[in-house]
Amino acid sequence: MTFPSELHRFQTFCDKHINPALEQMFVAPHPDMQRLYQAMRYSVMNGGKRVRPLLVMASCLALEGQAQDAIAPACAVELIHAYSLVHDDLPAMDDDNLRRGQPTTHIAFDEASAILAGDALQTLAFEVLSDDKLAPADDSNRLQMIRLLARASGAAGMVGGQAIDLAATGQRVDQSHLERMHRHKTGALISASVQLGALASGRADDRALAALTRYADAIGLAFQVQDDILDVVSNTETLGKQQGSDLQHDKSTYPALLGLEQARTYAGQLRNDALQALEVFDDKADILRQLADYIVQRSH
Amino acid sequence: MTFPSELHRFQTFCDKHINPALEQMFVAPHPDMQRLYQAMRYSVMNGGKRVRPLLVMASCLALEGQAQDAIAPACAVELIHAYSLVHDDLPAMDDDNLRRGQPTTHIAFDEASAILAGDALQTLAFEVLSDDKLAPADDSNRLQMIRLLARASGAAGMVGGQAIDLAATGQRVDQSHLERMHRHKTGALISASVQLGALASGRADDRALAALTRYADAIGLAFQVQDDILDVVSNTETLGKQQGSDLQHDKSTYPALLGLEQARTYAGQLRNDALQALEVFDDKADILRQLADYIVQRSH
Repeated sequence: MTFPSELHRFQTFCDKHINPALEQMFVAPHPDMQRLYQAMRYSVMNGGKRVRPLLVMASCLALEGQAQDAIAPACAVELIHAYSLVHDDLPAMDDDNLRRGQPTTHIAFDEASAILAGDALQTLAFEVLSDDKLAPADDSNRLQMIRLLARASGAAGMVGGQAIDLAATGQRVDQSHLERMHRHKTGALISASVQLGALASGRADDRALAALTRYADAIGLAFQVQDDILDVVSNTETLGKQQGSDLQHDKSTYPALLGLEQARTYAGQLRNDALQALEVFDDKADILRQLADYIVQRSH
Repeated sequence: MTFPSELHRFQTFCDKHINPALEQMFVAPHPDMQRLYQAMRYSVMNGGKRVRPLLVMASCLALEGQAQDAIAPACAVELIHAYSLVHDDLPAMDDDNLRRGQPTTHIAFDEASAILAGDALQTLAFEVLSDDKLAPADDSNRLQMIRLLARASGAAGMVGGQAIDLAATGQRVDQSHLERMHRHKTGALISASVQLGALASGRADDRALAALTRYADAIGLAFQVQDDILDVVSNTETLGKQQGSDLQHDKSTYPALLGLEQARTYAGQLRNDALQALEVFDDKADILRQLADYIVQRSH
């Protein structure tokens, strides 16, 4: 997946801030922990698109915050995302061998290392937000970020969505069920990313937070609808995972539920909702606008 | 494992505070998440000894804090402990079918549910500490608790210890290696429990924290030495797990390394270290003293 030029420049800017901060987290304090730290590093420093950190940064900058202040929450959401992928790929879960064209963590290492690496990546996300050297926001702000991230990623958020997903495999579900699943499984963390960025700016009022949350809800769902579409139309090489793997796993998808064309129309509507939510912001929110466009236009 | 009468009274007192707080966390917000919440509940409300919550409470009371203020950190350490057991028991890890005489979570539910339940229990620990309704301490104090718990339970703490343990299975290791493993795998969370209790009291100075940490380090190791001894001498019924299962898994243990008698002497020394560390405290620390005695005298 390649970003168009302006988004690509912003991605490079974010990577320059975030990657060194992440990289320094994976230095094993003792040789006999090296394999664990290597598995953690492998799961995070894998050329991921960093969509969630981009959202944290873009949302912080949209409210005229400093990029520096968004680094810790940007790392934290990426760590949560990375842990969820590692556990999601496990044999007992989706049993995927490939992720972004590379062997998944339990293939490159082993299952036990993948379970532990995922566990430790989750812990690290909360450590990062609680560390005053990394997260310079004031105490109350940081506690609010931790609370937000915990709610978005736990049983009532992302993990709950994975549980809904597992329970529904092999069953025909309706659109409201599918949306509840996605709102939890991917939407909650995307929404948290935008809200964490706003909090990091130190300039988030209720109106801005509400608009950004509405934006995030729309792009979170749009991202998933487009993902389902791409699972049908792309090939394994460009997608970096096995094409049609959702179908193989007998999962409900938007194209299966609505038909391919209707699914595309729906993705477009969600993009429009997202842009409408941003109308209260000036051109500092343009990166967020471009991300909404990109999400429904990407071809892999 | 049954406590002697005074400890048993204290355990009842703690259970009365902690169990209702834990219980209310496992109400699924939607029927299609029920299995996840059931698996989480099953993993926590299983008649566990609650040694770590006891330590949080006892440490808070030793510094003349209020029991009420120790509830959130006591729940948080128990949630971390419970998640670690669920993941530790998985087929790719220790592959245990029994825990406290009951089927382990992946047996009672399924492997995917056990992975997700463990993940969500970890998140919940941090949510509890970040929630001002549950954790009444001031913001800076709560952030310090979150940082402490994250460091103790992540890659440089408990999870790191599990990684050392896995790496050492089937190998002969020396005592310093074994102690580094245990200091991480179980000691870090036991130490964090005592420190969190001290922080919850709102009355922890550096001297008290140092003494309590020394106490916790000693009982953490003593607990493990005694566990290894019991794995050799107890039977499956009283232990609630398969007797000799460490031996079966070809794990290094203190009796294997030092001989049974030397291992018993060592457990006694660690108990004495623990009691010595508590000399700076008055009789409000008696529960901590009784716990140190109990840990090396228990027969299952």
